[in-house]
Amino acid sequence: MRPKIYLFGDSITEHSFGDGGWGASLAHHFARNADVAIRGYSGYNTRWALMAIDKVFPPPPPATAENGINGGGGGGYEAAPVCVTVFFGANDASLPNRHAAFQHVPIDEYKQNLHSIVSFFKKRWPSTHVILITPPPIDEATRILNAYVKNKSGLPERTNESAGNYAKACVTVASNCGIPVIDLWTKMQQSPDWRTDYLCDGLHLTPGGNEVVFEEVIGKLNELGVTPESLPSELPPFINIDSNDPLTSLSKWSSFMV
Amino acid sequence: MRPKIYLFGDSITEHSFGDGGWGASLAHHFARNADVAIRGYSGYNTRWALMAIDKVFPPPPPATAENGINGGGGGGYEAAPVCVTVFFGANDASLPNRHAAFQHVPIDEYKQNLHSIVSFFKKRWPSTHVILITPPPIDEATRILNAYVKNKSGLPERTNESAGNYAKACVTVASNCGIPVIDLWTKMQQSPDWRTDYLCDGLHLTPGGNEVVFEEVIGKLNELGVTPESLPSELPPFINIDSNDPLTSLSKWSSFMV
Repeated sequence: MRPKIYLFGDSITEHSFGDGGWGASLAHHFARNADVAIRGYSGYNTRWALMAIDKVFPPPPPATAENGINGGGGGGYEAAPVCVTVFFGANDASLPNRHAAFQHVPIDEYKQNLHSIVSFFKKRWPSTHVILITPPPIDEATRILNAYVKNKSGLPERTNESAGNYAKACVTVASNCGIPVIDLWTKMQQSPDWRTDYLCDGLHLTPGGNEVVFEEVIGKLNELGVTPESLPSELPPFINIDSNDPLTSLSKWSSFMV
Repeated sequence: MRPKIYLFGDSITEHSFGDGGWGASLAHHFARNADVAIRGYSGYNTRWALMAIDKVFPPPPPATAENGINGGGGGGYEAAPVCVTVFFGANDASLPNRHAAFQHVPIDEYKQNLHSIVSFFKKRWPSTHVILITPPPIDEATRILNAYVKNKSGLPERTNESAGNYAKACVTVASNCGIPVIDLWTKMQQSPDWRTDYLCDGLHLTPGGNEVVFEEVIGKLNELGVTPESLPSELPPFINIDSNDPLTSLSKWSSFMV
């Protein structure tokens, strides 16, 4: 079975296989070595994610002769994924007295929830790399204009300051858990044109913003030693096939032969 | 476990999560309902694919108390995928007396191999929809100019006529097997500017060409009744969450409630 990479998060994860999406780029990067699976849920915060995490990552069923013998159709044993990205906070950081109040999660609960999500993965799959990603920055002026959200108050439902506080909280949780974190909020604002280069509606990502996330995730994976070259590949690359004897190249191939 | 869609093929499948790729679009389309997994192998023909198919889709391991109890780390039981696309022929159709001769597979063997690949899937997973995709058309003039291939002969290693013969053979196999087929070779040439709109190097796909494949695959899946709405979803969409009682919405959710 191929190694797997799970992307767990909100809309920025759910949409990550759209035009120029960071998830699709990750799948392309690992096209011969790992399956990248979307577990993104638009609008979700950490409270809902934590409540539903057992549905998203169901426990393995007990072993029975039946599911062993038929070997398909109802199975579901799952090897530990190589990596899970956890990318929540943009919705938690919605202000409690504004249009998206019902998505708001108080910052102390957000930290606790993130911690519990990390613990869930570490208990389920001790060898799996868990990478936290902070919410991106918010362009408040564009949020107010956002036609998708029927917000007539004239006030943004999210602010960059609030997103920044949740980003700092996320970084703290990662530090406490001893796991890697991508501080997207800080990283994106290092570019002067972040509002237009990286955000399409003051919150979600442009292809440029997706590229930043992709590069950051790849960077963390490289640091962790997770590269296409480090993962098994069930078949040899074309360049490793002997044009005079292709069938022998195929039959003798084993992973890590490159 | 989420339903899965496998994409089995050559480079046009391996690269299908690149810029504007048809595989990524498929994953985006099914972002909440199915995992789309790449099993694409650049340069491969049906002979090599058939020889290696057991490595690509390994049989389930025998049931043991151990792999049942630990439930991860070494498992590998796999439910039947919803669909497998089989997209080979571009390499088989390489001419036997030209630069890429060692990728060539005679057309009768190609038909037999395709048939065997379909039979493999139908035996392994009787309920799985198998969709064949023919090779795309070839723009010979651009193939000769292709800098990637060190072909100094001045003759294209593939011709559109040969690709067309393999496309017809693929359609015949699908008909004999009673399964759906996408005749990409014919479909693309219905557009007068197919050489530049759909092909980037006379063989591989532009974003426009990827869009054609995506639309065709979605069309076949629709005909088969495989749509996002027809598949289970482990969590409710945001619009189905009661803003006054989100946690009840989550706990009461079951698939097919939309």
